[in-house]
Amino acid sequence: MKAWEKNIRKVVPYVPGEQPKGDRLIKLNTNENPYPPAPGVQKAMREMDYDRFRKYPDPAVTDLVHALAEYYDLGDDQIFVGVGSDDVIAMAFMTFFNSEKPVLFPDVSYSFYKVWADLFQIPFETPALDEDFRIRPEDYYRENGGVIFPNPNAPTGLLLSLDAVEDILKHNQDVVVIVDEAYVDFGGESARTLLDRYENLLVVQTFSKSRSMAGMRIGFAMGHPDLIKALNDVKYSYNSYTMNMPSQILGVEAVKDDAYFKETLAKIIDTREWSKLKLRELGFSFPDSKSNFIFATHERVPAEKIFEALKAEQIYVRYFKQPRLDNYLRITIGTREEMEALFAFLGEFLATAH
Amino acid sequence: MKAWEKNIRKVVPYVPGEQPKGDRLIKLNTNENPYPPAPGVQKAMREMDYDRFRKYPDPAVTDLVHALAEYYDLGDDQIFVGVGSDDVIAMAFMTFFNSEKPVLFPDVSYSFYKVWADLFQIPFETPALDEDFRIRPEDYYRENGGVIFPNPNAPTGLLLSLDAVEDILKHNQDVVVIVDEAYVDFGGESARTLLDRYENLLVVQTFSKSRSMAGMRIGFAMGHPDLIKALNDVKYSYNSYTMNMPSQILGVEAVKDDAYFKETLAKIIDTREWSKLKLRELGFSFPDSKSNFIFATHERVPAEKIFEALKAEQIYVRYFKQPRLDNYLRITIGTREEMEALFAFLGEFLATAH
Ligand SMILES: Cc1ncc(COP(=O)(O)O)c(C=O)c1O
Ligand SMILES: Cc1ncc(COP(=O)(O)O)c(C=O)c1O
Repeated sequence: MKAWEKNIRKVVPYVPGEQPKGDRLIKLNTNENPYPPAPGVQKAMREMDYDRFRKYPDPAVTDLVHALAEYYDLGDDQIFVGVGSDDVIAMAFMTFFNSEKPVLFPDVSYSFYKVWADLFQIPFETPALDEDFRIRPEDYYRENGGVIFPNPNAPTGLLLSLDAVEDILKHNQDVVVIVDEAYVDFGGESARTLLDRYENLLVVQTFSKSRSMAGMRIGFAMGHPDLIKALNDVKYSYNSYTMNMPSQILGVEAVKDDAYFKETLAKIIDTREWSKLKLRELGFSFPDSKSNFIFATHERVPAEKIFEALKAEQIYVRYFKQPRLDNYLRITIGTREEMEALFAFLGEFLATAH
Repeated sequence: MKAWEKNIRKVVPYVPGEQPKGDRLIKLNTNENPYPPAPGVQKAMREMDYDRFRKYPDPAVTDLVHALAEYYDLGDDQIFVGVGSDDVIAMAFMTFFNSEKPVLFPDVSYSFYKVWADLFQIPFETPALDEDFRIRPEDYYRENGGVIFPNPNAPTGLLLSLDAVEDILKHNQDVVVIVDEAYVDFGGESARTLLDRYENLLVVQTFSKSRSMAGMRIGFAMGHPDLIKALNDVKYSYNSYTMNMPSQILGVEAVKDDAYFKETLAKIIDTREWSKLKLRELGFSFPDSKSNFIFATHERVPAEKIFEALKAEQIYVRYFKQPRLDNYLRITIGTREEMEALFAFLGEFLATAH
C-alpha cells in the first residue's frame, strides 16, 4: 500500500440499480414514469437561450421555488429545491439530525437513509414493519433525534393515512419529522396540509416519478420558513451553484402544465389497479400499493427465479436479495402495453415453472 | 428557542457573489466567459430527445468521461466527472484528506478550500503568499495531510511554472496533491503531463470558464485510476445520480468542438493582454495574469471607491473586503466592447476621483 492510500476514505461502494440499454427492453426496475415530461418542457427546451449557459445559474433557484410555492399555495420561503430528492434528504440529514439520540426510520424503507446516517455519523434505530409490512406509528413514540419515513413506503407501496402521519407528528414535536413523499402523487394524501400546525414537519417530494423528470434531477422540500432557511444556510455554506440552468428552466414548465400532470397520473393509477387484478390472476399477492410500483410475491415460484426469467426476456424488474424481501419483486407500473407484455410472458412462464 | 432548533447544524452562511440581472449591465465579477458555448451545444440542445428525461441519467456519466479521456489522451478510468469543479473538489477533500496532519493551501486562494476543510473537519494550514502574491514551493515541503492550490491562482491570476508544480509534487509523494486548474486553459501549462510520473496527483478542471458553461455545472478530475476509483466509490456511496442528462449530453458537444474552443480562448487572451496595456495607462498595477481575470490596484484611488462607482454604472467587478486584498479589484475579461466601455468610464472617473 502506498503512503497516500492510507488516508483514503473507506466506504462500502453502493451499486446503483441496473440501467440496461437497448430498444426492445422493458424497464420496470427504477420506478420511472412511462410517459414523457409535459409537452411544455419540450417546447421550453427547444427555445432555451443557450448563450445564457455561459453564466452561473441562479443559486437561489428563484423561479422554480416560486412556481412550486404558487402551485402548492405556500410562501416562497417555505420551499427548498435540490438536485433530486436524494440531495434534499441528504442535506436535511446534515442540517437537522445533529442529536446524540437515534434518528428513527423503518427497517424496510428507502435504502439511502441508512447510508446518509452512516456518512454523517448520525446514530439511528430502525423499528420493524409489522407482519403485513405496515409502519406502526406507536414505534415512533419513543425518544429520538428525528424521524423520517417515506409515504407511501418503498418498496412496499403502502400508504399511511394522514391521521397516522399526524399521530407520529403529535408524538414528536421536539425533533424534525421528515415525510418523504416521492410517491404520494400516485394516490396518497400529502402531509403538506399539516404544515400550518407542525412547524417541525418537512415534506419532501421529487420530479423523478410523478413528473417524469428523473433525468433532470429535481427534488424539493416544503416546510416552515425556519427549516427552509436552515437548509439554505447549510447548502450555501459549502456549494452555492448546484442546480444547473436547464433543470431550473424546465422544472418550471413541468409545474405549469397541471392538466398533463393529472392526466398522466390517472393513466398510471388506472394501469396499476388493472395490474393488481392481473397479478392476482397469475397467483401473486402484494401489499395494496398506492405508488407507481407493486411489491409482489408468487404463491409457488421463487421471486429470484421469476426475476432471472424476466431478465432473459429483457424485462427488468427489481429484486432485493435481503432477508424478508427476497421472495418479492418490485414491479414499476409501465404503460398498458408494457404491462401486457409482462403478463403475457408471466402467464406462459408460470404455467410450467416451479 | 424551540426544542428541535437545538439540533440544527450551525453554519456561517456564505453569501454568493452578486448575480445582478438586466440587459444593459456589464458583468465582470464571476469569471464567466463572454462568449457562448460551442455551436454544437446549441444544436444538440435543440435535438435532445426530451422523452429520455423521464429516465434516470447514467450514474457513471460514461459518454462525457469517454469524450474527456479521448480529448486529453487518457484512459476512461482516469477521469472523474462532477457537478462543477466545486463538487469535484469537495468530493476530493472528503475522499483523500483523512489524515491527522494539516492539509496545506495558500492563504490567498479559492475561498471554498477553507469552507470544505471546516465542513469535513479536516485540519489545515495556509502558508502565506510572498509579497508579490506568489506561491513559494518551499512552503509545501513540510509534513502535511495533503496539498491543494489553484494554478493559475485565484484571485491573483498568477501561474506557477510546471517545474515549480513538479517540485511541490517531488516533495509530497506520500499525500494526494490536487492542482485546481480552473483557469489553466487561458495560458497555463497543465500538470496533466505529470500524471504518468506522480500517481498521487489529481488535476481538476472545469467547463465553467474556458468552455463557457458555468450554467451547466460540469467539472472533472484527471488522475491515476486508483484515485479515480476512490472518488467514484465515495460518490456512489451516498448519491448515485448527480449529473443530469442535459449536462451529460451537452458536455460532450462542448468537448468535441476544439476549433471553437481554441478560437474563444485566443480572443480572451488577446483581450486580456490589451486590457493590461489599458489598465497600466490608467494607473493600475497587477500581478501578470495568465487567467481570464486581472487583479488590479490603482496608484491613487481606493479600490472600494472604484468598485462602487462602477456598480453605479452597472459595471460589476469583484471586490474582496479582506486584509491584503481590500485595495484590489478582480476584473473578469469580457468582450473587447465590454472592456472598452469599462476603460472609457474609468478614464473619466479616475481623472477627477481621489
Ligand atoms: C422513497 C424515495 N425517496 C427518495 C428517492 C430519490 O429520488 P430522486 O433523488 O430521484 O428525487 C427515491 C428514489 O427511488 C425513493 O424511492
Ligand atoms: C480556483 C477555482 N476553483 C474552482 C472553482 C469552481 O468552479 P465550478 O464549480 O464552476 O467548476 C472556481 C470558481 O470560481 C475557482 O475560481
